[in-house]
Amino acid sequence: MPRYSLGFDFGTESVRVIVVDIRDGRVAGQAVEAYAHGVIDETLPGSREPLPPDYALQHPQDWLDSLASACKAAVKQSAAAAEEIIGIGVDFTSCTMLPCRGDGTPLCLVDEFKSTPLAWPKLWKHHGARAETQRINEVARQRNELWLARYGGSIELEWFFPKTLETLNHAAQVYAAADLFIEAGDWLVWQLCSGPYPRCDVNELVRSTCQAGYKAQWNAQTGYPSREFFRAVDPRFENVVAEKMRGDLRSPGRKSGGLRADAAKRLGVREGIPISAAIIDAHAGVPGAGVASPSTMVMVLGTSSCHMMNSRTEVLAPGIAGVVEDGILPGYFGYETGQASVGDAFAWFVERFGLSHETLSRDAAKLSPGADGVLAIDWFNGCRTPLMDPNVSGAFIGLTLATKPEQLYRALIEATAFGVRWIVETLRESGVPVRRFVASGGLPQKNPLLMQIYADVLNEKIALAASDQSVALGAAILGVLAAGEEVTGYAQVSQAIHAMAHQREDLVYRPDLQARKEYDKLYALYRTLADPAGPVTAVMRQLRGHGSA
Amino acid sequence: MPRYSLGFDFGTESVRVIVVDIRDGRVAGQAVEAYAHGVIDETLPGSREPLPPDYALQHPQDWLDSLASACKAAVKQSAAAAEEIIGIGVDFTSCTMLPCRGDGTPLCLVDEFKSTPLAWPKLWKHHGARAETQRINEVARQRNELWLARYGGSIELEWFFPKTLETLNHAAQVYAAADLFIEAGDWLVWQLCSGPYPRCDVNELVRSTCQAGYKAQWNAQTGYPSREFFRAVDPRFENVVAEKMRGDLRSPGRKSGGLRADAAKRLGVREGIPISAAIIDAHAGVPGAGVASPSTMVMVLGTSSCHMMNSRTEVLAPGIAGVVEDGILPGYFGYETGQASVGDAFAWFVERFGLSHETLSRDAAKLSPGADGVLAIDWFNGCRTPLMDPNVSGAFIGLTLATKPEQLYRALIEATAFGVRWIVETLRESGVPVRRFVASGGLPQKNPLLMQIYADVLNEKIALAASDQSVALGAAILGVLAAGEEVTGYAQVSQAIHAMAHQREDLVYRPDLQARKEYDKLYALYRTLADPAGPVTAVMRQLRGHGSA
Repeated sequence: MPRYSLGFDFGTESVRVIVVDIRDGRVAGQAVEAYAHGVIDETLPGSREPLPPDYALQHPQDWLDSLASACKAAVKQSAAAAEEIIGIGVDFTSCTMLPCRGDGTPLCLVDEFKSTPLAWPKLWKHHGARAETQRINEVARQRNELWLARYGGSIELEWFFPKTLETLNHAAQVYAAADLFIEAGDWLVWQLCSGPYPRCDVNELVRSTCQAGYKAQWNAQTGYPSREFFRAVDPRFENVVAEKMRGDLRSPGRKSGGLRADAAKRLGVREGIPISAAIIDAHAGVPGAGVASPSTMVMVLGTSSCHMMNSRTEVLAPGIAGVVEDGILPGYFGYETGQASVGDAFAWFVERFGLSHETLSRDAAKLSPGADGVLAIDWFNGCRTPLMDPNVSGAFIGLTLATKPEQLYRALIEATAFGVRWIVETLRESGVPVRRFVASGGLPQKNPLLMQIYADVLNEKIALAASDQSVALGAAILGVLAAGEEVTGYAQVSQAIHAMAHQREDLVYRPDLQARKEYDKLYALYRTLADPAGPVTAVMRQLRGHGSA
Repeated sequence: MPRYSLGFDFGTESVRVIVVDIRDGRVAGQAVEAYAHGVIDETLPGSREPLPPDYALQHPQDWLDSLASACKAAVKQSAAAAEEIIGIGVDFTSCTMLPCRGDGTPLCLVDEFKSTPLAWPKLWKHHGARAETQRINEVARQRNELWLARYGGSIELEWFFPKTLETLNHAAQVYAAADLFIEAGDWLVWQLCSGPYPRCDVNELVRSTCQAGYKAQWNAQTGYPSREFFRAVDPRFENVVAEKMRGDLRSPGRKSGGLRADAAKRLGVREGIPISAAIIDAHAGVPGAGVASPSTMVMVLGTSSCHMMNSRTEVLAPGIAGVVEDGILPGYFGYETGQASVGDAFAWFVERFGLSHETLSRDAAKLSPGADGVLAIDWFNGCRTPLMDPNVSGAFIGLTLATKPEQLYRALIEATAFGVRWIVETLRESGVPVRRFVASGGLPQKNPLLMQIYADVLNEKIALAASDQSVALGAAILGVLAAGEEVTGYAQVSQAIHAMAHQREDLVYRPDLQARKEYDKLYALYRTLADPAGPVTAVMRQLRGHGSA
């Protein structure tokens, strides 16, 4: 009997469901369904009142409705029999979070709050909590909070507690009415496996160590930040953890519960299927890229880039966005680092100047390392790792009257490669070994020039994830782990991963000796400009005061 | 009886002739005639052999032929009677120079050399003499040549002796056959007033103190660089001054001679009209802008910018491109400073990205000082004043995913304004007063946004030259000076200038208080990045090694 696992992959605009053969990772069925309301950033549903410019919200019913459609379609396509589906894994954007009642009802669906923007789920890229982020970082530094070191010295605008504190500050009645603030991925899993219908039971609520660890400063040894810390931030915030954060913490791959009857009916599958604790979408890309072993960096290259790695070593390194025990896979310290704009910066260039990626890539490929004399800084959306500084910005240096657009384009690609190298060096210098590289995400397939430049700049071979849906595949693998050895036959996490996910064998990018030498020199120049204590970054920060937004 | 002076304005592509009423500067007639061969940068006339990419040559017969057509047309249009034309002034691009025989015959018109590129006149922007420039600067620094200080510490690629030495190095037979190396402006004046036809007499050769002072390191007290210096550069070059540089030096406005019969016939005017010593085209813009007094900076704003000023004070300031006694007007020290790309940088932006000046200017005008957070460095063609460094380059800092093209465009304009402010501060800090500002050239009329930004950044009022042909008008004024007080009634240089050239009364740009304050802060950031000993300029210089020339 073939057996299948379902991967539910909740993105920013749509949910993807894949039905995967657990023996070999073959995708037997798949479907994508867009959210009816998409990203809510202009007006609330049923309202004509404009939202503030920093807002990005979602509709929780969209997640359930789109999932039901996509799941039924994917299962139908797979022709899997009901009993052949043995597990479910869920990945979700993060930190996407919402306030809800103790029975799981989102406050935005309660009449009293449906016109209050901050009662709605905040999407990861909701940027309303600038002041709150600053406050939390200030107080944490004043108090020398030990957890700061696990996040490279500061937390970010898009994380969980800034968003929660924003609600307290700007919609105190919503904060008061909320029994829970919860990650959307955890809420979704809870909706699928806790009952009785139509409510959920707060005693059955499971939160993911991944979301909690990377976005809410939770740690396996010490839990969330202390009550004293939150009181110092704001006396009204003192009991946020005790009052609003109930839930059992489990790592991705551990079972949260079994699919409840009404949900099974809506999804068109059988009741009771084991469901894994949720995982952040990018992080699902690690098992989805076929990586089970430590010290292999999975580079998810897309509009932004996320570089993740499991390690047996825990090091609190300056500039590393997050180190979380059991954060990605059970038994390892999961490291997350990131670059805030990669494909986004290329798209900016293409759109602002009306040129095509195809033409630019073709012409850029003819240039030598160094883009014939142009050097860029890639911080078009600030620098995540290692500077953790949203106020630095992008730059081009070396322009002449003969400079052509393809030089700027290539310089941008090279700058993102220098950014990766800096991250790798930061890890290694901190004592975290980085031995192998696997690329996934949208860019590697589309942009071979970029991949070759990354190999040259890193002076490393780079393999490619075989699946073009490695995130959804990673979620499905977590479903296999949740189902357990008795059902799947996989005694080890690594067995399931190696059976179901791979790297391409037909294409590996290898460094070119001559290019590597050139890039060594250029990287030194990049680091000179990017010096966090140097004049360029100082000017960038001051210019931010002259900018709009 | 009305009286007229002729201005012959030799540009890069064409010659302009204007017939000007000496009482009030009214232009009674004018004509422009393009050179038949234009800029010779692909193949020599009659040849299919490609020229090296750095070459830019001209045909001397073009100058004479185009002048004859334009002069006849302009005089005809003016309806001036033969005896009413009382003087001629000539301005010319510089350093545009040629090798010729002692009777004025250009070597390129001699059968033996017509296929030798370096026998042809080299246009100012001929860039074949990189190695020679470097050699001359090296030797000058080693020997601590005193004249270096008058040129801010180095001479430039486009100047006279690099071009001459290039001929010695790469066409020794041309060098040997040349009785003279001569500025094109001086050659043209000599052709007009020395005889007997069809030759010239080397004993009647007059060279301009302007061209010699700014481009050939000549000085009223010490003459050209010494024989010992040239020997140290290259033993074969030892006697270049004695052997190849004959000619009497006179300042612009002094008479070189009278128009000879055959030339008068070709030009359609009477024989014997007094002709002034030549002047560099940009420098003619000083009298042409109605500026007779010291301490008034004339900013000629075009593809590049040239900022000139007469002063009673001689100061050898680091970074000032040239200080020449009698260089612009008799009786003053003429200061020349420059920015190597201004309009050229705007054109680069417009062309490379397929946008229009009109749209960009309109949208850029809506932005605040600082281009909403973007700062540029304007060295797209190196930095002339004050760094004298061809190896630095342009830059943009402060880019984000929201940055729009008009921000880059405005930042470029602002960067050129910061460049002017740096020049003015360099002069003032050296003890050279700069009290008033007059703008001329192509940009001021076309770009009011640029003019307002310059006024704000400088915190100074800026007047505009009334004539849109201030260079040609300046040449015509020199013709009046050459004619002498007995003919013109003008006892002082300033009388002639003030009668014939003016600034606009209807439009003066005045600094805005609020903008000025913002620009003070931004200028400080610009100077931080542009620090000649800082990391940005260091990286720029190193990138030059990675560039394609």
